[in-house]
Amino acid sequence: MTAAGAGLDLPDLVAIRSAAARIAPHVHHTPVMTCAAIDAEIGASLFFKCEHLQHVGAFKARGACNAVFSLDAATAERGVVTHSSGNHGAALAYAARRRGIPAWVVMPENAPAVKQANVRRFGATVRLCAPTVDARESACDDVARETGATLIHPFDDPRVIAGQGTAALELVEAIDGLDAIVAPCGGGGLLSGTSIAATSLRRGITVFGAEPKNADDAARSLARGSLQPLAPTATIADGLRTTLSPRTLSALRAHVADIATCSEAAIVRAMRMMFERMKQVVEPSAAVPLACLLERTIDVGGKRVGVIVSGGNVDLDRLPWQAQ
Amino acid sequence: MTAAGAGLDLPDLVAIRSAAARIAPHVHHTPVMTCAAIDAEIGASLFFKCEHLQHVGAFKARGACNAVFSLDAATAERGVVTHSSGNHGAALAYAARRRGIPAWVVMPENAPAVKQANVRRFGATVRLCAPTVDARESACDDVARETGATLIHPFDDPRVIAGQGTAALELVEAIDGLDAIVAPCGGGGLLSGTSIAATSLRRGITVFGAEPKNADDAARSLARGSLQPLAPTATIADGLRTTLSPRTLSALRAHVADIATCSEAAIVRAMRMMFERMKQVVEPSAAVPLACLLERTIDVGGKRVGVIVSGGNVDLDRLPWQAQ
Repeated sequence: MTAAGAGLDLPDLVAIRSAAARIAPHVHHTPVMTCAAIDAEIGASLFFKCEHLQHVGAFKARGACNAVFSLDAATAERGVVTHSSGNHGAALAYAARRRGIPAWVVMPENAPAVKQANVRRFGATVRLCAPTVDARESACDDVARETGATLIHPFDDPRVIAGQGTAALELVEAIDGLDAIVAPCGGGGLLSGTSIAATSLRRGITVFGAEPKNADDAARSLARGSLQPLAPTATIADGLRTTLSPRTLSALRAHVADIATCSEAAIVRAMRMMFERMKQVVEPSAAVPLACLLERTIDVGGKRVGVIVSGGNVDLDRLPWQAQ
Repeated sequence: MTAAGAGLDLPDLVAIRSAAARIAPHVHHTPVMTCAAIDAEIGASLFFKCEHLQHVGAFKARGACNAVFSLDAATAERGVVTHSSGNHGAALAYAARRRGIPAWVVMPENAPAVKQANVRRFGATVRLCAPTVDARESACDDVARETGATLIHPFDDPRVIAGQGTAALELVEAIDGLDAIVAPCGGGGLLSGTSIAATSLRRGITVFGAEPKNADDAARSLARGSLQPLAPTATIADGLRTTLSPRTLSALRAHVADIATCSEAAIVRAMRMMFERMKQVVEPSAAVPLACLLERTIDVGGKRVGVIVSGGNVDLDRLPWQAQ
């Protein structure tokens, strides 16, 4: 018996180790932080892997760099393209600049100016489209046809998944005796890479996903064993408003113990706690694992728990705990 | 010839090394961060010593711990007292709790509830007084007379200065080839300790102070060689609204090259830059060194520069760049 999605290519530990070597010149080996006050609140020892301190402010730099530096020279020369209104677009732009190749990022025409600027900062070309899935995909296809650029999907790509897994590789190698790891889950690229790396490196470790109750498609998909749709949704964790792919679901079914959910209020509380107690600027999506721990939807009493802090790109003009 | 204030006791490198050993079990050896984007903006290599990640969120834990753990057992038993509406009060409360002795913190009755709570969190007793220097000093005297507690001044104390100097000790030992160090200057305890440690450890290093133009008493005092008053002042860097003492002025005259000043706008810009680019939550006072570098009132082109990030205790309900 194999998991659903068997035959879909997924990286193994060897691929994740290769990714780590490939991207080492281009990404930060981020620090691991602890916080006694938060440990006391949760009743566990938490080890925060600080991907908000990564290039472009998010773990996405890892997957994008691995994909871009995996391309052969002739293919790379024609450039890369993706669709993203968030961190993956900036990460692909960053990776392409590091390799010296062109990048195109398709964004919805209603994407905030700051997010567009974040992509252009690294020299990529922004292509605006109508804010629908169809428009986005056809804009990507157009760019690929016109330029010969290679599509680098935000998560449904084994090279991207391997890159994202390098954060957990570093964390498990840095911290002895981890009992569990928690990572946020949107499209599942980070959680797939995390779970493959962690369970391959350390037998018996438990890997949890964390997502907002308001965008709980991954929890439902894992429970049912098949992809469940995500209704139009409102969560402040905008990085997690994405559904799994067959590929990421198959990784999660094989390696993830459970996907926990949390309330919007808990996300705000966890995010503020990370600002106040850890003095770290994190985005709402990055606070979702701690939010699940605060609401006890993940039980880790007395355990040593790694937490992937996914990113720190947040609108500093209005933080979610501030009145409108 | 000796500097003004000769005869005022100041710590030397031996005392700062003793302090480091004394407080090691009670304080964090904080990390040093770098940020390529800010380096590019300034045109220098900056090494940020992260005292906002220290216990109680500020370097003040170092000086308070050194003072408290320097007391003999009989004296310590009667407790410690200070006046502070800011980080020193919380730091003294923390140090006293670590030693298991009582602490009293005199605060103006208009001190924000959150600052009072921050002191009580560590088990100290808050004594409120009228918001004047006289009321504050007589309240401290009252506590000392009633209880036998020892006054631990926020900065005019060689044990406190030695403790504050341990941050620079760690920084200079961690980073090779520093050309300069910049530290914020309020009462001058941190800058005194920093300048003594840095110039003793590394011949030829240049130490700069940094203060808001709106509270430039230290710059004027150093320029004239005598204590200059500070008119009632408005700066968002509330930690730096304090004048030097004869003791700290004498240390600065001996070891500090210059005290630079910066505008309020630059403080806000520097603070936001540290949130956005470094993903670090810092208080306005902690952004003053970077603000001086941004306004080029300190010239460090091409140099390797240590920056003491003094603290991260800031009102997260309203950040200074946000509209009222």
